[in-house]
Amino acid sequence: MTEQRSVAIWRDGAAVAVPADEPVLTAADHGLVRGDGAFESVAVLDGRTPHLAAHLARLARSAALLEIPPPGDDVWHALVDAVLVRWRAETEGVLRLFLTRGPGDEAPPTALALLAPVPAETVRQRTAGISVVSLSLGIPADFRAQAPWLLGGAKTLSYAVNMAAYRHAHRLGADDVVLTSLEGELLEGPTSTVVWAAGGTLHTPPTETGILPGTTVARLFERAEADGWPTARSHGTVDDLHAADAVWLMSGVRGAAPVHTLDGVRRADAGLTARVRGLLAR
Amino acid sequence: MTEQRSVAIWRDGAAVAVPADEPVLTAADHGLVRGDGAFESVAVLDGRTPHLAAHLARLARSAALLEIPPPGDDVWHALVDAVLVRWRAETEGVLRLFLTRGPGDEAPPTALALLAPVPAETVRQRTAGISVVSLSLGIPADFRAQAPWLLGGAKTLSYAVNMAAYRHAHRLGADDVVLTSLEGELLEGPTSTVVWAAGGTLHTPPTETGILPGTTVARLFERAEADGWPTARSHGTVDDLHAADAVWLMSGVRGAAPVHTLDGVRRADAGLTARVRGLLAR
Repeated sequence: MTEQRSVAIWRDGAAVAVPADEPVLTAADHGLVRGDGAFESVAVLDGRTPHLAAHLARLARSAALLEIPPPGDDVWHALVDAVLVRWRAETEGVLRLFLTRGPGDEAPPTALALLAPVPAETVRQRTAGISVVSLSLGIPADFRAQAPWLLGGAKTLSYAVNMAAYRHAHRLGADDVVLTSLEGELLEGPTSTVVWAAGGTLHTPPTETGILPGTTVARLFERAEADGWPTARSHGTVDDLHAADAVWLMSGVRGAAPVHTLDGVRRADAGLTARVRGLLAR
Repeated sequence: MTEQRSVAIWRDGAAVAVPADEPVLTAADHGLVRGDGAFESVAVLDGRTPHLAAHLARLARSAALLEIPPPGDDVWHALVDAVLVRWRAETEGVLRLFLTRGPGDEAPPTALALLAPVPAETVRQRTAGISVVSLSLGIPADFRAQAPWLLGGAKTLSYAVNMAAYRHAHRLGADDVVLTSLEGELLEGPTSTVVWAAGGTLHTPPTETGILPGTTVARLFERAEADGWPTARSHGTVDDLHAADAVWLMSGVRGAAPVHTLDGVRRADAGLTARVRGLLAR
């Protein structure tokens, strides 16, 4: 499917579109050598990126936590334009923006964009829902706030553990993962935010636990509040998810994926997924 | 210094040497997108790699933990030959071998080699010693052995936290880091193994804590035992390091770097660094 991908890289002050199968990163780039950089995954709908601003804000925050000089939003906009111009608007896409520390030796950071079709499995999970298992990260929920070297809150390129958690879930017959703290407190999915509905309120874990601030959850919560649906940053456990009216894993591209099975136990959504989708689609 | 680097990549069944400033990785490669791969850093002395076999064994083990099909030692030997043939034997080098999950879509993993001069600062620390601070990883020492998704024991490309730990140490005026478990048990350095001498024995933490099995320590311990110097895999704390006769951080390229300052407290080495170096140099 390589021919459907679109790639652009920032070179000598300009966004340069390159064929998707053309190498763009040198062997010494810290993005490869150390997974040292940040990224964002942005939904592309009808050839546009309606939620780009929230992702660029989070990318700048990740860069600050990593102490990588951010290239500025003009660079990202130019890269986004360069990949979108070759994109068929009827194809739903996932746009990845990458910022690495670069190849060293005083060279600037590397900035590039990769646009690809949304995988069919992602679309299927969005509508059919997902089976999820809980796995522990082994870190106390309050630890990362006092340990900046653990990079809590930064969306880094170092996702090997996130991917290993997916493989572990797949071996258990599940689609996805809810990561928990050492004491069993809810954190986040490997590439998503956990949201649950209980007691007439929408809940998501506080970012003080070291999780990423979810862009989709932020949008949902703002609209839910305006719609009279209270929201809260809540400490919770897997038992709270079992007892909840509905549970979702939320991300920019997949949207709100309803959790139909949690640690092997089937669960319902009290019809709330439709309301969540309605709010997100506004 | 780019002109001093040497790069080779495995393409269509052959090791291909490429200019160091030529891109080798596509934007979709999981080595970039997810830090999803493994690596090794191998010392190059007099134009040779005397300890390559131990690194290839560990690379194969990391690949197995990551469930990436290893390309086989023949591929690595061809890549090593391809970068060494252009190398000046009088320059001490660090050879990095990278294995990534590849660009997806049924494509094979990516295998490449990067050879660069050993940084002057590394050579300085080897002889002058290092100042080290202890930082906690926040995970209990016995946790990773039961949580394979945390990839304990795998040398992955996801080193953003390792690099952030270095930056944190530098802010504190130190050169390097000893990572500890949640309860304060010694683990490892971000790119090294901790070794201490106490009670006439050489100690290093057990790999059941999720640390990497150090290739330099393995070589040292084998030779020390043969030389009548007992060795042990020991659970230890930062207090044990303060009380030890000598402490080193060991790695393939820097060798045994004596710790002259630990968390701001000066310490000596009881003259043991010379003996350690003698054993490693055999």
